[in-house]
Amino acid sequence: MPNLLDPILPALTTLLGDRLTTNTGLREHHSHGQDTQPPVMPDAVAFVESSEEAGKILALCNAHKIPVIPYGAGSSLEGHVTPVRGGLSLDLSRMTKVLEINQADMDCRVQAGVTHRTLNTHLRDQGLFFPVDPGADASLGGMCATRASGTNAVRYGTIRENVLGLTVALPDGRVIRTGGRVRKSATGYDLTRLFIGSEGTLGVITEIQLRLHGIPEAASAAVCQFPNLADAVETVIAVMQLGIPVARIELLDEVQMEACIAYSKLEGFAALPTLFFEFHGTPAAVAEQAQQAEELAKSYNAQGFLWATDADERNRLWRARHDAYWACLALKPGHRGIATDAIVPISRLAEAILGAQQDIKASGLTAPIVGHVGDGNFHTVILVPPEPDGLDRAWELDKKIVARALALGGSCSGEHGIGIGKREFLEQEHGAEALAVMRSVKTALDPRGIMNPGKIFLN
Amino acid sequence: MPNLLDPILPALTTLLGDRLTTNTGLREHHSHGQDTQPPVMPDAVAFVESSEEAGKILALCNAHKIPVIPYGAGSSLEGHVTPVRGGLSLDLSRMTKVLEINQADMDCRVQAGVTHRTLNTHLRDQGLFFPVDPGADASLGGMCATRASGTNAVRYGTIRENVLGLTVALPDGRVIRTGGRVRKSATGYDLTRLFIGSEGTLGVITEIQLRLHGIPEAASAAVCQFPNLADAVETVIAVMQLGIPVARIELLDEVQMEACIAYSKLEGFAALPTLFFEFHGTPAAVAEQAQQAEELAKSYNAQGFLWATDADERNRLWRARHDAYWACLALKPGHRGIATDAIVPISRLAEAILGAQQDIKASGLTAPIVGHVGDGNFHTVILVPPEPDGLDRAWELDKKIVARALALGGSCSGEHGIGIGKREFLEQEHGAEALAVMRSVKTALDPRGIMNPGKIFLN
Repeated sequence: MPNLLDPILPALTTLLGDRLTTNTGLREHHSHGQDTQPPVMPDAVAFVESSEEAGKILALCNAHKIPVIPYGAGSSLEGHVTPVRGGLSLDLSRMTKVLEINQADMDCRVQAGVTHRTLNTHLRDQGLFFPVDPGADASLGGMCATRASGTNAVRYGTIRENVLGLTVALPDGRVIRTGGRVRKSATGYDLTRLFIGSEGTLGVITEIQLRLHGIPEAASAAVCQFPNLADAVETVIAVMQLGIPVARIELLDEVQMEACIAYSKLEGFAALPTLFFEFHGTPAAVAEQAQQAEELAKSYNAQGFLWATDADERNRLWRARHDAYWACLALKPGHRGIATDAIVPISRLAEAILGAQQDIKASGLTAPIVGHVGDGNFHTVILVPPEPDGLDRAWELDKKIVARALALGGSCSGEHGIGIGKREFLEQEHGAEALAVMRSVKTALDPRGIMNPGKIFLN
Repeated sequence: MPNLLDPILPALTTLLGDRLTTNTGLREHHSHGQDTQPPVMPDAVAFVESSEEAGKILALCNAHKIPVIPYGAGSSLEGHVTPVRGGLSLDLSRMTKVLEINQADMDCRVQAGVTHRTLNTHLRDQGLFFPVDPGADASLGGMCATRASGTNAVRYGTIRENVLGLTVALPDGRVIRTGGRVRKSATGYDLTRLFIGSEGTLGVITEIQLRLHGIPEAASAAVCQFPNLADAVETVIAVMQLGIPVARIELLDEVQMEACIAYSKLEGFAALPTLFFEFHGTPAAVAEQAQQAEELAKSYNAQGFLWATDADERNRLWRARHDAYWACLALKPGHRGIATDAIVPISRLAEAILGAQQDIKASGLTAPIVGHVGDGNFHTVILVPPEPDGLDRAWELDKKIVARALALGGSCSGEHGIGIGKREFLEQEHGAEALAVMRSVKTALDPRGIMNPGKIFLN
């Protein structure tokens, strides 16, 4: 079978040697992310080692209109890395250099294949940390591409607020640097933010200048439980409005708690709506924040407070939270999971989540709910029955949850991105005119349409 | 003399009635901002009242390739509102409606002509405030267009971090909404951030969805003085790295302090490098932050601490800071002022400011320095002598200060924007390739080049 890459294989091989491969196992590995989209194999996989090399590969592919699909850690949840039209999977996982750390300025420069956990290991000695933490150990390039966030975005912002600048290889081979090292700037169009969230459809992010934060002097965690979901959500609204600078505030519904209690051996908790808190600051500030949050929560009928100031106990609680996805899967052996990602204004969160619970009940499926509620963002892990219509039923439920979020003034994705799975909602969310503007930007930067085709836009 | 607008004057008059004017006084008023660029009169001024109306005007102008220059409060410092190629000044100052305030979600929607002070007056009863405060009472549309910030960006972020969504009228008359009401989203290209900082060159921002913050329970201010600038800057770095969540941290050099002492009758202070602090939080948190900052400052030889917890005393100090520009002008009657806006990584701030002081000395001009030092951003107000070569000498000095900032890894503008005055630095700062990408975005969104021509790009 002729390979889409045939015309440029000699040139690519000269450039990359054995870092270009058509090995079936590796192509299979690059045919999908952590999602339920149908896998499609790329024609080849290139393991790139520098921005300049990425530019040269792109220029070759662009000349022959060959699709290029950037690939980081492969942890995308919306099919971003699937080569739906074949082409070259551009794997950045070998670009793992931490290029510089500037302690006084609290910034660093990394290659795109560095994962956030690896970076934090590098930073520990410097008293610094990088706060954005999606559940998976995603690559920082992939996190930029999908506009990732996670549990402590409520305090530290998403990746969007924590990137100072990027190096990007463009489809025609040019390599640009956007932004810089300063904390703010008012000089020209915000190309950094244009590439953040562009899901590999405009260019390949190869290096990132990141903003860092000082490791807080003290941290404490707390867990409390509520008789009903509305009380838990009202507590969240009150905490946010009082301006308590919570580092994390996570909601688990009664089904998710049941799963976590079983999976993570969380003794002393009931299968009730539950909030997990984390506080960062000085010891006195942390104690005060915790006390304020407890008082607020109690005024909304919270019970069963558990405080954890030592690192081990705190880590045990947060590990349970981070293992929520696996706890869900353990509820129904043999099922796969689809993570929904709706987000609404906080005032509508109770409606959105209670509505989702009704939809879940009506669907007959199991789908625990866990959310970054300080931001109004919640996930349901829809457990896909291993039956012929299982996936269709799960997607149907996902659509209902998204439709309600949009009707409540929300968005179909808080942090996972559009990819393949959410394309149909983009026009509804932003309108045909705004979508047309996005398309004109796409055409301006990628006129031959080689960058990750089939993502974000429906056609 | 034929008016550029002649072909569309009948249609515009039908649309706007007496809100379209060719009155000389009004055209003169719209010929310049708060800058020293040569004024140029527009051919007419349109006072627009809605997004749809803005769209209709733009479509007419676009059909005839007539330049459109958005105009808010006219407080731009870089010539943004000057109609360098004539055309229509599109004045949004009558779009002053606060459209909605959502207390529980801490957001609001305003028309673009609302100023930040007016908005904060509206919000006061709700326990909320909008933090971004450039010195002037700028319109929120103009603040978005120039990517404004101000004294408390160090804690609350710039306008970029505090806008949830925009309504924008495009050159061809389409009106789009970008973003939404949710605190974060990963759905498609970040058009909101693309228009923020685009300086009216891509479209007209007509409405803004803003993120708000709870008014802090307590606030205190502090002022301390240092024997030299390096000690003051080291204090700033230490404060930032310790993660003390200062609401404001401002540096005034000895010349600026001399000006402020004289102008604002600041008794008890010497003409020495000085830091102004503000702390927000609970009473206990504010007291702790203030104490930590004081200890750090003293370890860098700070003296003459003055704490102000009551609102009157705090306001008196901050009024002196906000009046710094007028204090400068009062130093040299008959002089105008050019505000430079360099920003560097904080670790290079002492070099940047000490270097600027040397350049000022060599120039023979007077130019006090005041800075948002938590962000590495500082202004010099270059006093322009009323002599034939005064302006040239002032611009020469500005260029030297910018050149040093760029050499130190900084940016030519932290918050004032490019406009006319900083165009020559844009390529040096971002590189020719990144500038070409900005141009291709410009061409995609404004193919006929009617939007605020002569700004950002040199030609």
